Amino acid sequence: MSETTVRAGVPVLCVLGSPGVPGGGLPNRPNLERLSGRARVEYADGDSLAALLPVADVLLVWDFASDAVRRAWPGPGRRPEWVHTASAGVDRLLSCPELVDSKTVITNARGVFDQPIAEYVAGLVLALAKDFRGSWELQRQRRWQHRETMRLAGTHAIVVGSGPIGRAIGRTLMALGVEVELVGRTERSGDPEFGRIHASGVLGTLLPSADWVVCAAPLTESTAGMFDAAAFARMKPTARFVNVGRGAHVVQEDLVEALVSHRIAAAALDVFADEPLPSGSPLWDVPGLLVSPHMSGDTVGWRDDLARQFCDNFDRWAAGEPLFNVVDKQLGYVPDRSAP
Amino acid sequence: MSETTVRAGVPVLCVLGSPGVPGGGLPNRPNLERLSGRARVEYADGDSLAALLPVADVLLVWDFASDAVRRAWPGPGRRPEWVHTASAGVDRLLSCPELVDSKTVITNARGVFDQPIAEYVAGLVLALAKDFRGSWELQRQRRWQHRETMRLAGTHAIVVGSGPIGRAIGRTLMALGVEVELVGRTERSGDPEFGRIHASGVLGTLLPSADWVVCAAPLTESTAGMFDAAAFARMKPTARFVNVGRGAHVVQEDLVEALVSHRIAAAALDVFADEPLPSGSPLWDVPGLLVSPHMSGDTVGWRDDLARQFCDNFDRWAAGEPLFNVVDKQLGYVPDRSAP
Repeated sequence: MSETTVRAGVPVLCVLGSPGVPGGGLPNRPNLERLSGRARVEYADGDSLAALLPVADVLLVWDFASDAVRRAWPGPGRRPEWVHTASAGVDRLLSCPELVDSKTVITNARGVFDQPIAEYVAGLVLALAKDFRGSWELQRQRRWQHRETMRLAGTHAIVVGSGPIGRAIGRTLMALGVEVELVGRTERSGDPEFGRIHASGVLGTLLPSADWVVCAAPLTESTAGMFDAAAFARMKPTARFVNVGRGAHVVQEDLVEALVSHRIAAAALDVFADEPLPSGSPLWDVPGLLVSPHMSGDTVGWRDDLARQFCDNFDRWAAGEPLFNVVDKQLGYVPDRSAP
Repeated sequence: MSETTVRAGVPVLCVLGSPGVPGGGLPNRPNLERLSGRARVEYADGDSLAALLPVADVLLVWDFASDAVRRAWPGPGRRPEWVHTASAGVDRLLSCPELVDSKTVITNARGVFDQPIAEYVAGLVLALAKDFRGSWELQRQRRWQHRETMRLAGTHAIVVGSGPIGRAIGRTLMALGVEVELVGRTERSGDPEFGRIHASGVLGTLLPSADWVVCAAPLTESTAGMFDAAAFARMKPTARFVNVGRGAHVVQEDLVEALVSHRIAAAALDVFADEPLPSGSPLWDVPGLLVSPHMSGDTVGWRDDLARQFCDNFDRWAAGEPLFNVVDKQLGYVPDRSAP
C-alpha cells in the first residue's frame, strides 16, 4: 500500500480518502509528492481505517465528509499524534468523544476557503437582490418581463461567524456597500474592520433589522439549530437567509415553514443536515429556496491548496515546530490567536 | 389635459410617456408634483406628440424606449428649447438628425443608474464564475452534483465605457479583487482610480488577456457593432462577455456563433437590438447565454429618482441657470466635464 520510498523509522501517514465520494467532494488523492521519502503513506477507506489508525503517527482526513473516524478511533493505547482535516469545519471529528478527550492535536484547513466562500455568498446575495433565478426561469419560458430589483448598497447584513470565513464575507459585502454586523461567540469591541462584534446571545435583538442573514459559523453545541422558528419569526418579511455553515445550524422544517408562509422572502442553502441531499427531499422545490451542493468554497485548484497546506503543516510537525490551525477542541474551532 | 394649476405664461412641459409600455419599462407617469403651478404639463403618446411639440418649451422623454421623437420632431420653427430623457443612453434621440442639428439642448439621466448597473454586472460576473444557473437547473432536476467553480479574485476584466456607469462597474469589480482595465473613446493616463484609460482603437490588443469583457459604452457610430466575430475571435475560450450597453453594440449572430462554437465560454445580455426580445428569437436558448429584460439599472425607486433628477434640472432651467447632464450631440454622451 505504500506510495513513497519506505525508510526505516519514517512516520506513518494515514490518509482517509476513498475515491468516488458520493456527490463528488474530493474524488482524487491528495498530491503529497513533497513528502516523498519522509512519510510512509497508507491510504484508508471507511473499512480499513480501524486497522491502520493504531500504527499511524498522523491522520489526514482527506475525505472530510466521512464519518469513519468516529467509528474507527482506537481505544487507549497507540493513536495518531496529529489529525488534520481538509475542511474548515471540525464538527464531524469532534463528534468522537475519545478523540476530543485524547492528547491528539487536531488541525484544519482554515484559510483555504475564506475568499472563495465570500465570493460565493456575495454572488448569492446579488443573485437574490437582482432575482437572477426569476430571469432565467422567464428565459426558459421565452418571456420578456421587466421587474424592478433591489439596490444592494445601503442594505443591512448580519453575518453569524466571526472567524476568517465570516470576516471575509463581511469584508466582501462591505465592499459592495452593505452595512455589516458580525456575530461571534463572545462580544468584542474595537475590531479594526467591524467595530463591535456581537455575542451570539444577542442575535435575536439584531435579526429584526437585517435585510440579509448569513450563517458562516462553526457547528458547535451552542450554534446547532440556532436558526429555528423563533429566529425566523424575528426577521423581516423581506429578509433573505444564506447558509454556508453546516446544515445542522438550521432547523430545516422551520425554514421551510418560514418560506412557505412568506415569513421571510427567500433563502439559499449550500449545506444540509443530510448530504448529498436525497432526491426525495422536500427541500429541492420549496418556493424561494435556492439549493446548491456544498460547493461554496471549492474553486478550481482547491485540492492542491488543501494538500499544500497540509504539507506545510507536516513540515512543521516533522521539525518539531508548533503546528498552525490548531483546533481548540472545547470551542470547536481554531481561535483567532492561532491564525497562521 | 393640464394636470397642474395653469397660470398665464407658465412654460409648457410635454411628457412623452404612454402607460403600458410593452415589457414594462416605465408604466407610471412621473411624479412632477414639485412643478405644480410652474409648468403646464401635457402628456403625449406616440400619436399625439407631433401636435404638442410645436407648443412645448420642454420635452421630458419619460418613455425612453419610444421612437416617437424622431417621427414627431417638428420642422424649423417653434421647437422645445430642452429635451430631457429618463435614460442614460441618448442613441434614440440622436437618431433624429433635425434634433441633433437644432439648438435644442438634450440632457439625460446620467448618475441614476451607475450603482444599480454596477451591482447587476457584479452579480452576473459572480453568477457566471460560480455557475449559479447550472446549480438551479440541477435543483429543478433534484440532482446533487458538486462542481468546482472559478475564483473571481485575481481575474482580469475589460470594461468598455469610461463614463460613470463603466467606472462604477470597474470600481465594484475591483472591490471584488478583479484587475480592471477601462476602455474609453480616447486614451487618458493618470486616472486616479484606473490609471491608464485605453482608447477603443486598441481594444483588439486588450481582448486576448480578458477573463471578462463588459460593454457599458454609449451607442454611437463608432461603438455600434464593435463586438463582432473579429472581437470574439480575439477573446480567450474561457472569456465571458456581458452587455449592459445597447443591443446594437453586438453583432448578435456573431455572438451566437461564438457561443455555439465554444469560441468564448458564456455571455449575459441585458440589452438587445430588438426589445422586447420577440418570443421567437433564437437568442432565448443559445447554450451559455443568459438573457434578462433590460432591467440592470432599474432598482426599486428608480422612477422616483428619475423624476427627482428631472425636477432638479427643471429648477435650473426655470432660473436660467446652466443645466446639468448636457449631452454633447456630436460625441453622443455627456462628457466628463459636464458631470453634476
